[in-house]
Amino acid sequence: MSKLRIGSGVDFHQLVEGRDFWLGGVLVPHHKGALGHSDADVLLHAICDAMLGALALGDIGLHFPDTDNTYKDIDSKILLQRTMQLVGEKGYQVVNIDSTLCLEAPKIKPYVPQMQETIARILSLTIEDVSIKATTTEKLGFVGREEGVVAYATVLLEKYTIN
Amino acid sequence: MSKLRIGSGVDFHQLVEGRDFWLGGVLVPHHKGALGHSDADVLLHAICDAMLGALALGDIGLHFPDTDNTYKDIDSKILLQRTMQLVGEKGYQVVNIDSTLCLEAPKIKPYVPQMQETIARILSLTIEDVSIKATTTEKLGFVGREEGVVAYATVLLEKYTIN
Amino acid sequence: MSKLRIGSGVDFHQLVEGRDFWLGGVLVPHHKGALGHSDADVLLHAICDAMLGALALGDIGLHFPDTDNTYKDIDSKILLQRTMQLVGEKGYQVVNIDSTLCLEAPKIKPYVPQMQETIARILSLTIEDVSIKATTTEKLGFVGREEGVVAYATVLLEKYTIN
Ligand SMILES: [Zn+2]
Ligand SMILES: [Zn+2]
Ligand SMILES: [Zn+2]
Repeated sequence: MSKLRIGSGVDFHQLVEGRDFWLGGVLVPHHKGALGHSDADVLLHAICDAMLGALALGDIGLHFPDTDNTYKDIDSKILLQRTMQLVGEKGYQVVNIDSTLCLEAPKIKPYVPQMQETIARILSLTIEDVSIKATTTEKLGFVGREEGVVAYATVLLEKYTIN
Repeated sequence: MSKLRIGSGVDFHQLVEGRDFWLGGVLVPHHKGALGHSDADVLLHAICDAMLGALALGDIGLHFPDTDNTYKDIDSKILLQRTMQLVGEKGYQVVNIDSTLCLEAPKIKPYVPQMQETIARILSLTIEDVSIKATTTEKLGFVGREEGVVAYATVLLEKYTIN
Repeated sequence: MSKLRIGSGVDFHQLVEGRDFWLGGVLVPHHKGALGHSDADVLLHAICDAMLGALALGDIGLHFPDTDNTYKDIDSKILLQRTMQLVGEKGYQVVNIDSTLCLEAPKIKPYVPQMQETIARILSLTIEDVSIKATTTEKLGFVGREEGVVAYATVLLEKYTIN
């Protein structure tokens, strides 16, 4: 049987005035930020869910419930680190991650390299293994009205081999 | 060339009063259910589509058209079984499935193990190979207004090898 | 480390009167077409993004910016060809593509074989390696109101080996 496994995640957050806007572990300057119990980092959440899903370990809501005060305003980089641990304990490592941020504004292109570095460092990857793409929804729907943000992530995992 | 193939599916259904709510082959108690020609099991439909798509076998609408009375109110577990047969006839088996249900209510966590068992049994997998995650859309869009439900699925297939 | 890599893309376009409707490299007869700077081929864009994302090469907006007049009304088949070149230069080839078009109308089933052939020819694949599925959103959201169209694509890439 294959040593590889596929995972995919999707996450949604409202955008509201007066919140910091964390994306991919980076604070992005904007007049709005994502609403949530944690820091509401939609991209890191989608990546965590894809990693957990590849091994049927449940989802981010199971491991880090928003009813638990431990996770109030928590830095999602900590959640990504714990997800990485769970994956490692199962004997798996990440081959590569691809992701897409759907948001109308701001332009996140200038922040992508820093997001890639942040995620790659936590997951012991190179930035060539952490893809972050962005698209608007062409003014359509709640993303187009700047009411919310969506992130999609897919991940390929591989079982460690001891040489 | 690789023995592996990737597939992905997405499915949508309206939520209306007075319908049973089938999700992942399990009847979920709720005041609304998904509308459709079959039992409208959005999760099984997304998984079928991902399996068919991995081998370019068309989509669920091609194999089980909603214009055909054979499929009126049909149990989608039968559609999953037939999809499995089509994949098997091409010499492929499922490595793993990851999926995400997007719905505002009800909480489906208590039903996830039974969904995993149901799908794993039909596909001759273990429950560790069938991941089902869930998320709300944080009140955003038609899912947030409880007008509809969306499911995403990704699948990794592998060609059989005769040892 | 695995020779395989996973990529995923999603793209959105508005549907408006008085535009040609290009989908998968094929002109689909319809009273509306997709709005955009290029020919607005939502399916080819999602596929390009999935291919770029698998190798962390950025996204379609980075390579073919809509602020650049070179890409005004450009045939997206040219963008797919260039994407293929970028992937090839990195030493990778496509194993298979799976995709889903979300649109309420028209029925695109009659055009799918031609779309598969068009994409397969550009990418030097067989049509069995290029899956195109379609679904409505069951009247839900901006796709259901025929205001827009969405495409999802996933791709599996493999590193060339010299035998
Ligand atoms: Zn989240
Ligand atoms: Zn369905
Ligand atoms: Zn586009």
